[in-house]
Amino acid sequence: MRNIKITLAYDGTDFCGFELQPGKRTVRRELEKALHKLFKRHVKTINSSRTDSGVHALCQAINFKIDHSIPTTRIVAALNSLLPEDMRVIKAEEAKKDFHARYSPKTKVYEYLIYNGDPMPVHLRKLAWQVKPKLDLKAMRQAAKYLVGRHDFSSFCASCGDDKNFVRTIHSFVIGNSSLGIWQGVKYRVISIRVAGNGFLYKMVRNLVGTLVDVGQGKLSSSGVRKVLRDRDRRVAGRTAPAHGLCLIKVNY
Amino acid sequence: MRNIKITLAYDGTDFCGFELQPGKRTVRRELEKALHKLFKRHVKTINSSRTDSGVHALCQAINFKIDHSIPTTRIVAALNSLLPEDMRVIKAEEAKKDFHARYSPKTKVYEYLIYNGDPMPVHLRKLAWQVKPKLDLKAMRQAAKYLVGRHDFSSFCASCGDDKNFVRTIHSFVIGNSSLGIWQGVKYRVISIRVAGNGFLYKMVRNLVGTLVDVGQGKLSSSGVRKVLRDRDRRVAGRTAPAHGLCLIKVNY
Repeated sequence: MRNIKITLAYDGTDFCGFELQPGKRTVRRELEKALHKLFKRHVKTINSSRTDSGVHALCQAINFKIDHSIPTTRIVAALNSLLPEDMRVIKAEEAKKDFHARYSPKTKVYEYLIYNGDPMPVHLRKLAWQVKPKLDLKAMRQAAKYLVGRHDFSSFCASCGDDKNFVRTIHSFVIGNSSLGIWQGVKYRVISIRVAGNGFLYKMVRNLVGTLVDVGQGKLSSSGVRKVLRDRDRRVAGRTAPAHGLCLIKVNY
Repeated sequence: MRNIKITLAYDGTDFCGFELQPGKRTVRRELEKALHKLFKRHVKTINSSRTDSGVHALCQAINFKIDHSIPTTRIVAALNSLLPEDMRVIKAEEAKKDFHARYSPKTKVYEYLIYNGDPMPVHLRKLAWQVKPKLDLKAMRQAAKYLVGRHDFSSFCASCGDDKNFVRTIHSFVIGNSSLGIWQGVKYRVISIRVAGNGFLYKMVRNLVGTLVDVGQGKLSSSGVRKVLRDRDRRVAGRTAPAHGLCLIKVNY
């Protein structure tokens, strides 16, 4: 039995998230449909991260076991010819026997984009969250510092998740303010919030971003974030940032 | 009667072009619907450029005459609250009495994006044309030089247009190869073809780009483009590049 690892990018806009859901267009459903067409059998896939409806990914890691002679070099083109155009296999490789996309990751990196202005550039509307009032980035960066490290993140975990252990480690939290150009000479300033950690609870990144935006708007002080962490109570943290600003950037094994 | 000029950006993906068409979702239809809601009367709009189905714009210029006291400072927010999210008014200003969006432009600038590789980045699929074989940019730049200047562009005009005079002036034709970043640290190399001119015939930019891509793939020599120009025959030029790679970048008055 070969253990194949593929790296998958998708535009989350038109997917009801990653997981299978009856009657819904999800990433796993489309992927397993394509794998079924390619291998003429059901292929069970294991993924590194569950992404919610609307969340994007540049490098979702997937592995599956298969008894088939197709060379890895052919898998990318073969799958892409069967997948819808809002998802693309970027890479395929032979993985070690014990490689497990879900349990093996050392670090996951997410990036959240905010357009801090008005009107919203039309081509960013499905990639970035529009926040109109000017954000205090200094205060947000200060608050982000308190979140780095090993903490119980219960306050940032949506209650409907099935997490039991709420301790996670955030390695870094970088808030950038850079210009993004799609066309030459046309630049948009976009705030990017990049967070790396050993794992994230259900909706944790979006809850962290929502709370940082509350800090940026002066609704919560930077040091207030320490109290939110300590309280271990979802009700004390800020709002949940919308899904479409979030992208899974990297999974390191 | 005031003469108001507005600057409009739109994502062309879900529009059947700019012009009114019975039963179709077009840019003018959505704009005039919003203007009707705002001013409680039909408002006739004049636009700088007709864009085809799928073509984007960052600065379509529009003017309309209106007898209404609304301050220009309020028009942007008022219209944006009524428009769908794939179109945004960027700017509103009081124009001179004789300003005419269609007849007054001195220069129009279009940019065409090509992703020269495989697989296609999912977030570029509605903004750039995927061309898989490696393009010879040097040959394309040489060919583009022959197109700059005042020429009869009949060979690059789609037959179904209503143009009668085929002479236009191309001021500049710049082919860039730069990296485009949406998320930090994630860069895509994209070829951008930027053309500035005093006006363009029906589908002319897409026909020019298609012909340059034929040059980049060795199907036509750089100097062959001179013969294509001279022949004044649409059949001798290259293919028409798809609409979704094209964007109206600038209109100068």
